[in-house]
Amino acid sequence: MFNKIAIFGVGLIGGSFALSLKKAGKVRHIVGLDRSPESLTRAKALGLIDEAASSIADAVRDAELVMIAAPVAQTSLILSSIYPHLQPGTIVTDAGSTKSDVVAAARVALGEKIAQFIPGHPIAGRENNGPDAAIDDLFTGKKTVLTPLPENRADDIARVAGAWEACGAIIHTLTAEDHDCVFASVSHLPHLLAYALVDNIVKKPKADILFQYAASGFRDFTRIAGSSPEMWRDITLANRSMLISMLDSYLEQLHRIRDMVAQADGDAIHAIYANAQRARQNWINAIEAAEKQQKEGGD
Amino acid sequence: MFNKIAIFGVGLIGGSFALSLKKAGKVRHIVGLDRSPESLTRAKALGLIDEAASSIADAVRDAELVMIAAPVAQTSLILSSIYPHLQPGTIVTDAGSTKSDVVAAARVALGEKIAQFIPGHPIAGRENNGPDAAIDDLFTGKKTVLTPLPENRADDIARVAGAWEACGAIIHTLTAEDHDCVFASVSHLPHLLAYALVDNIVKKPKADILFQYAASGFRDFTRIAGSSPEMWRDITLANRSMLISMLDSYLEQLHRIRDMVAQADGDAIHAIYANAQRARQNWINAIEAAEKQQKEGGD
Repeated sequence: MFNKIAIFGVGLIGGSFALSLKKAGKVRHIVGLDRSPESLTRAKALGLIDEAASSIADAVRDAELVMIAAPVAQTSLILSSIYPHLQPGTIVTDAGSTKSDVVAAARVALGEKIAQFIPGHPIAGRENNGPDAAIDDLFTGKKTVLTPLPENRADDIARVAGAWEACGAIIHTLTAEDHDCVFASVSHLPHLLAYALVDNIVKKPKADILFQYAASGFRDFTRIAGSSPEMWRDITLANRSMLISMLDSYLEQLHRIRDMVAQADGDAIHAIYANAQRARQNWINAIEAAEKQQKEGGD
Repeated sequence: MFNKIAIFGVGLIGGSFALSLKKAGKVRHIVGLDRSPESLTRAKALGLIDEAASSIADAVRDAELVMIAAPVAQTSLILSSIYPHLQPGTIVTDAGSTKSDVVAAARVALGEKIAQFIPGHPIAGRENNGPDAAIDDLFTGKKTVLTPLPENRADDIARVAGAWEACGAIIHTLTAEDHDCVFASVSHLPHLLAYALVDNIVKKPKADILFQYAASGFRDFTRIAGSSPEMWRDITLANRSMLISMLDSYLEQLHRIRDMVAQADGDAIHAIYANAQRARQNWINAIEAAEKQQKEGGD
């Protein structure tokens, strides 16, 4: 049970974290902060938070947990604003999609209080944002990755993990570097590719005709290009060295495939397509087996 | 009403075409052919076809319509096998995903009978293949593109269009070249990109860990990489000059974005992401408005 939690950013992630903890009966009082006064008022009206903070000092005072659920580019500023008010008994965590940059920013902003900061990343996104998108089961059955620092106390890590578990999440632990490598590959690069493809098509001379014939495959392929441009610009910049390394590897692959197509090398093209199809099917099978096991375990 | 239709390839597309026409009461007798004897037996057992053809000559004799719904690479061979048996009153059409190559192959295979061939492409795919995947509403509300030849008779075009409309499809007409340009852009390139990305990831040293953290965004982005590798190798080769042109344009775009990321040019990245997000949202809005109108029109 947490007596008081402060949440910076009361949108989809922060709001859903609040709702889930309330539903689990794990929190007495939630105070919210947001750079948008409208969002903050809305979060209060929706019952995501109990109180709209009047100041950062008031919000952080006596909080057992501070959750930063704002776009990653704001994390540094928020941590600096928290620092002067941060009491020894307060744990700070975040929900940012990148971790190495957040850890670096936290070391600068929090200085000797760094042990109180436990970096996290819930793997749960949607196209919709803002307080109205918050739901009480966003994290159910989803992974939350923690990337603890050597300075963190085991009890504090367990407390953050416990909060996420109360939201229904499954805790995984990675180093910040491994985290950023993994998500550059399976999330950040696909987002960049989807945005790039839609932008590329819309700038073609007959774009309206092209879109007219785009069907369900294109719709799924580009779904992630419906995500917030601001959030994904921030993630792109925050994880740019890993992302560039993944992009370069993919560009090399595309140039190789281009040569195969130009040479009409059907066997080589088939080998790549078949390998991908098989790998994806194995992955889907593993997901479905895990979901089945989870359901049966829950009965 | 068609007294007799012959269908080459009784899988998802050919089988669904058969089921839809039967449901609409537009055909008396359907004879099927397939390179796989198991598929042909299965199609007969499922009631997709009335008769498994004993020979190409028997199948084509007295047919009013011949539908070729086999992988595009086989179209040329099938047309050549039909040619000696093709009577003046029979219309031939196809369901191939590429059109310029099919038209070129048809001109060679059918010679002076080319006027009887009306190229088509139903825009309806799924990950599943084979006779068991066939359903009677696969084409309902979906586009079917016809790319008629200058030699085609207007009556024959109307008859093929009528068959598709009986299946619930909406007829669009394009030149073969425009068709191939459009689908290289919104279908063939996205398939290549999705296959390439999954193959790229599965070949990385820690592929199992990467897949473990892939979530719903990645699942949607790569759904088309679950499609038949053989079918998509054929399409890639059949439409390779258009596809290479689209791929080159995309590669240029990716190299430009790579520079923006390397230079941490947040404004330029944001401009691309925001443009893509807006364009995709406009497209989704247009689709939803059209669906709404269609529903209201149907009441």
